[in-house]
Amino acid sequence: MRAWQLTVAPDPESELPLFLRIARAIADDIRRGRLRPGDALPGSRTLARELDVNRNTVLASYDELRAEGWVTVRGRGTRVAGEPPGRAPRLLAPRSLRSLDSARAGFDVAPALPADAPPHYAPGALMLARGTPDVRLLPTAQLARAYRRALLHHGGSLLAYGDPRGHPRLRAALATMLSAARGIAAEPDGILVTRGSQMALDLAARALLVPGDVVAVEALGHPHVRNTLHLAGAHLLPLPVDDGGLSVDALAQAAARERIRAVVVTPHHQFPTTTVMPAARRLQLLELARRHRIAVIEDDYDHEFHYDGPPVLPLASSDRSGVVLYIGTLSKILAPGLRVGFAVGPAALLERMTSVRVAADIQGDLAVECAVAALFESGELGRHVRRMRRAYRSRRDAFVSALQHQLGTALDFEVPSGGMALWARAAADVNLDGWAEQAQALGVIFRSGRLYDLADRPSPFARLGFTFHDERELAEAARRMAAALALHRRGAGAIARTRAAVPA
Amino acid sequence: MRAWQLTVAPDPESELPLFLRIARAIADDIRRGRLRPGDALPGSRTLARELDVNRNTVLASYDELRAEGWVTVRGRGTRVAGEPPGRAPRLLAPRSLRSLDSARAGFDVAPALPADAPPHYAPGALMLARGTPDVRLLPTAQLARAYRRALLHHGGSLLAYGDPRGHPRLRAALATMLSAARGIAAEPDGILVTRGSQMALDLAARALLVPGDVVAVEALGHPHVRNTLHLAGAHLLPLPVDDGGLSVDALAQAAARERIRAVVVTPHHQFPTTTVMPAARRLQLLELARRHRIAVIEDDYDHEFHYDGPPVLPLASSDRSGVVLYIGTLSKILAPGLRVGFAVGPAALLERMTSVRVAADIQGDLAVECAVAALFESGELGRHVRRMRRAYRSRRDAFVSALQHQLGTALDFEVPSGGMALWARAAADVNLDGWAEQAQALGVIFRSGRLYDLADRPSPFARLGFTFHDERELAEAARRMAAALALHRRGAGAIARTRAAVPA
Repeated sequence: MRAWQLTVAPDPESELPLFLRIARAIADDIRRGRLRPGDALPGSRTLARELDVNRNTVLASYDELRAEGWVTVRGRGTRVAGEPPGRAPRLLAPRSLRSLDSARAGFDVAPALPADAPPHYAPGALMLARGTPDVRLLPTAQLARAYRRALLHHGGSLLAYGDPRGHPRLRAALATMLSAARGIAAEPDGILVTRGSQMALDLAARALLVPGDVVAVEALGHPHVRNTLHLAGAHLLPLPVDDGGLSVDALAQAAARERIRAVVVTPHHQFPTTTVMPAARRLQLLELARRHRIAVIEDDYDHEFHYDGPPVLPLASSDRSGVVLYIGTLSKILAPGLRVGFAVGPAALLERMTSVRVAADIQGDLAVECAVAALFESGELGRHVRRMRRAYRSRRDAFVSALQHQLGTALDFEVPSGGMALWARAAADVNLDGWAEQAQALGVIFRSGRLYDLADRPSPFARLGFTFHDERELAEAARRMAAALALHRRGAGAIARTRAAVPA
Repeated sequence: MRAWQLTVAPDPESELPLFLRIARAIADDIRRGRLRPGDALPGSRTLARELDVNRNTVLASYDELRAEGWVTVRGRGTRVAGEPPGRAPRLLAPRSLRSLDSARAGFDVAPALPADAPPHYAPGALMLARGTPDVRLLPTAQLARAYRRALLHHGGSLLAYGDPRGHPRLRAALATMLSAARGIAAEPDGILVTRGSQMALDLAARALLVPGDVVAVEALGHPHVRNTLHLAGAHLLPLPVDDGGLSVDALAQAAARERIRAVVVTPHHQFPTTTVMPAARRLQLLELARRHRIAVIEDDYDHEFHYDGPPVLPLASSDRSGVVLYIGTLSKILAPGLRVGFAVGPAALLERMTSVRVAADIQGDLAVECAVAALFESGELGRHVRRMRRAYRSRRDAFVSALQHQLGTALDFEVPSGGMALWARAAADVNLDGWAEQAQALGVIFRSGRLYDLADRPSPFARLGFTFHDERELAEAARRMAAALALHRRGAGAIARTRAAVPA
C-alpha cells in the first residue's frame, strides 16, 4: 500500500484538453522515474476525486496512456509498463538526483569544508582512532524508558514550541551538578542547553565574532573546532602546546602585539595531548584575559573522566571577571548520538547566543532534554558516570600495561591522569603514518597527530583511544600494533637496505 | 541524597598546611553559595578517599571549619551552618549567576538579535497569533512507542556517531514521499535531514553566502528568516508581495541592476499572506534564476496543508537547471518540538551544507530520525497527515463562517486554499494594533502584520491562525474579537469626540 497519495499536476498553462494534460503529467512522472515499472496508478474514482474532475476524464487519460504504451491494464488495475515507450532520449535514470540536471548547481557553490573523514574499518577491526565512548556501556534502556515517560506524561508541552534555552528541568539539574561537582555557581536561567558542545562552540563563535577577528587556538586541536571558527570568519592564531597545555606566555606575547578577540582552550585534558593545565597557568590565563578583554572559551569536553588525584575544577570556577564561557557536554557520558551540551557564562553573551540559536535551530529537543533531566534527578546519571569512570580507568591501566609489554621503548608516553586516550610518541626510527597503515591491514586503527595539527605537519605522535574497547580487546589491539610495527620496521629496513645497495 | 559528589579543590599553590587548605576551599565554597546552609558535607572517610589524603587531615579541616563557625556538627553529620561567620562583605548572593562578577562580561558582546517574542497570554486565552499545530492532535503515543522501539532494537548504532546527512531509513522514506507526493525525484543520498526547516535555511545561508551578498526576500516574511540571513552577512533586498506571492517582475528588475545571490521564497502559501504563486510566475522565476545564476531557496513549510483544488507541486519539481534548494519540514505535521526538516538540491550545495552541519552540530538525533522513519514506513504518518488535513480544513471553514457572522464587513479576507492561517484586512476605521490590544484583554490573541514587515510599517492586516484551536474554540475567538472591536470602536470614537470637542 502506498502511504502517500500520488500527486498529479496537469499543466494549467497548456492548451491541450484536460484528459491529455493529465496523461502528459503522468507520462512525465514515468519518464522522470517518479513512477517506476510495476507501480500501480490510483483507481480512476480516486484520482477523479483528487483532481476534482469527472471520472470519464480520468478514464480517457488512462486509455491514452495505455495506447501510448506507458501503462498496462491487468485485471482491474492500471500499472506502469515494464518498458517505457520510445522516448528514451528524454528518459532520466531513475532514483538518482545526480542524473537530474539539478545535480549540477545553477549557481556558484564553494567546496565543502575539509572534513575529518571517519576512518574506514573492516568488521573485526579494533578502533583506537576516535575518543568515542563504548556504546555497549550506554544506558540505552533507561534512556528509552525516560524518553517514553517524558512524552506520555508531558507530551503536549514537550512537542510544542518551548524555551530556546532548553527544558527548565534540565537546566535546573545542570545547575545543581555544576555547583556541586564543578565549582560553578550557575543558576538555571544562566545556562543555555545546546545540542552537544559543538553547537555551543558554534553559537559562541557566531555570537562573538565578526569576520577578521583574531582567535587564538591550541596549535594542536580538533579539526571541527577550526572549521567552526573559520565559518564565523575568524583569523586563527595557533599557540604552542606543551606539557601544561596551551602556552599562556605565547598568548601574552600575541596579546601585546595585536587584538585577540577570543581564545579556545581545553585546560582539563588538552585535546589531543591529554595534559592538564596547572593552577598557576590557569590564573595567569584568567588575569591576561581580564586585562585584554579576551573571551576565554573553555571546552571541558570530558570533565567526568579524571582518574588520579583530586578532581580539577574548570577555569570557570575561578573566573571573577566574566571572561570565561564554559562549554560542557553530556554526549561523552551518555551517548555521542545524544547531542546534549550546555554553555555557562556572562549573561549578555548567553542572551546573544540564545538569539542565534533561535535563528539556527529554534530550540532543542525538549523531550530528550526532559528525559535526560529525569536521569539526573533519579541519580541514574550520577551512578552511570561513576560506572563509566571505573570502567575507563581500568581500561586505561590495562592498555598502558599491554602497550608497555608489547611495544616497550617503541612507544613513549605519560600515563594521562584522565581522559579517553593516550598521547604517545613513536621511537625515532618509526614512521608513524607507515606504521598506522600497516596496523590497519592487521585490523587495528589509529592515526597520527597530524590530523590535529593546524599546520598539517607530519607528527611522531599518535592519539590512542582506550574507551571504545574493553581490556581484552585493548590487549589484542596492542598485540596487533606490535605485529604491525615489526612488519613496518622490516619493510622500512628492507627499503633502507635497498636504497643503500643502489649506487647513488 | 546527593547524586553528584562534592568536589573540593585545595589550592595547590598555597603555603598553608594541607588541612587548612582543604578548610579554605570548603569555606570559599560556602562563601560563594556553592554550599548552602544545611547542606551535608561528605563523611570524612569519603572525602579523604576522594582527595587521596589521610582521614585525620580531613577531620582536622572539619574541626577548623567548626571552630571558625562555617559548619555545625549534629549527631554524626557535618553540615553547613545556618549563618556564615563574619565575612559577610565577601558573601555573594546564592543561586544567582547575575550576582557573580561574571554576569558582567569581561569582553565586548553585541546585543541579542531582535526576537519574535512569543505573546504572553493568560490561562484560558485563545491563541490565533502563531501558526502552530494543535498539540492535542499530535501522535504522541505512537511517537513515544516508535522511539522506544528504535532505541531498544538499534540502540548502540543510534547512540553512536553516525551519518551527518541523517539516518538512512529516514532519507529513504523522505525520498519516496518526495517522489510520490511532491514530484521531486530525489534519491536518499540527495537529501540532507536537518533539525527543522529553520536549520536547513541556516545551513543554506552559511553554505552559500559571504558577507555583503545580496539576498532577495519577500517584503512580508518571517522574522526568523531575516535573522538567519543577517547572521550570514546577507544584504537583504525586500521585494513586493501581491496576490500571486513574490513579485518576480520586481526580482527581474533588481537582477538587471545588481548581482542577486539568492532569493528566499514561499510559493506554496506565501508566508504570511497565504497566497499561492501561479504556474506562469513559477516558470518565470525559474527561468530568471537560471539566467542570472540565482539560488532559489524554496521554503515549503506547510506543503501538506492544501485543501481546495488539485495539489500544487513545488518549484523544485520543475527545476531543470539546478537552481532550487528545496526545504521542507515535518515539524508542522508531527510536532513543532520535534525538529525534523530536510533539504534537497544540487549535490555540490548539499555537500557544503553537510560539512557546515558537522561544524555546527555534528549530526542529528538518529534515534528520533529512525523513529520518524518507522512512522513513515508503517503508513502511520501518512494517515496522520490525512487526519490533520481534514481537521484543519474543517477548522478553516468554521472559522471563516464565525468571522463572517461576528465581524461582517469589519474584516475582509479571501478564503485561503490551504495553510494554517487567514490573512485578513481590517476596515479603514479600525486601528489593528488597538483592536488587538483590546482583544488581548478579552482573552483572544492576534497580532498585526507589522511583525512580518521587513520595513516595520503599521499594517491593516492580521494573520489569524486557525489550526491551534478546534471549531468551538474558534467560534468563541471570533465572538471575543467582535466584542473587542465594539469596545475598541467605542473607545476610538470617544477619543475622536473628545478631540473634536477640544478647541484647537
